[in-house]
Amino acid sequence: MAQLDDDTRSKIEAPNFAFLATLMKDGSPQVSPVWIAMEDGRLTFNTTVGHVKDRNIRRDPRVAISIADKENPYEKVCIRGRVVEIVEGDEAERQIDALAKKYLGQDTYPWRNPGDARVKVVVEPESVST
Amino acid sequence: MAQLDDDTRSKIEAPNFAFLATLMKDGSPQVSPVWIAMEDGRLTFNTTVGHVKDRNIRRDPRVAISIADKENPYEKVCIRGRVVEIVEGDEAERQIDALAKKYLGQDTYPWRNPGDARVKVVVEPESVST
Repeated sequence: MAQLDDDTRSKIEAPNFAFLATLMKDGSPQVSPVWIAMEDGRLTFNTTVGHVKDRNIRRDPRVAISIADKENPYEKVCIRGRVVEIVEGDEAERQIDALAKKYLGQDTYPWRNPGDARVKVVVEPESVST
Repeated sequence: MAQLDDDTRSKIEAPNFAFLATLMKDGSPQVSPVWIAMEDGRLTFNTTVGHVKDRNIRRDPRVAISIADKENPYEKVCIRGRVVEIVEGDEAERQIDALAKKYLGQDTYPWRNPGDARVKVVVEPESVST
């Protein structure tokens, strides 16, 4: 597992958007913004069960994540890594609320759709460039 | 070729960063921020000959691009597409200066490294989600 330096950790701990690339079924890339957090030196994000990102990472765990500092967008970090854990249930529901607190300052994630189940995804960084 | 709606065009025409995903040799994704512009309904960006992005798109033209509006980061667009043109020489050098004007307000790209050759890359959008 690649270690993240202090600058990279600060960018992840600040409410900066991350752009997550996953692989479609045909191997082509897909990229979209996600909220992100650090956990035991690994990166985590949250998505909805059955959505494109969720389907993609279950099929192929290889992902890439780039973060630009919103205060200084020319300070960027690009990470390549692998999904090592996919967690559904209460822990995933609690995580989306924690991310809503971090990014929106709200205790509860405000954009839940009825019937949606959340999934927490843990990524182990394999290479980091800044 | 997928058509880009007015909202998507506005996001691209404003000085918003785009996050470009390309494919590494082993098929894993890579993602990094790029400056971007519209040209005849297609997207263009600029990179350096021989760098990772350049090597990747020459090997596999499949890319994805996501743009978040810096005024409202929850307004996002995710595009999947294909590199259809790779242009080196004067046109590529002129493009990086035009992008420096757009993003930095400077007439000349200030971060040229001696010996670097620029490359202009044109992407045809195949699917767009907002």
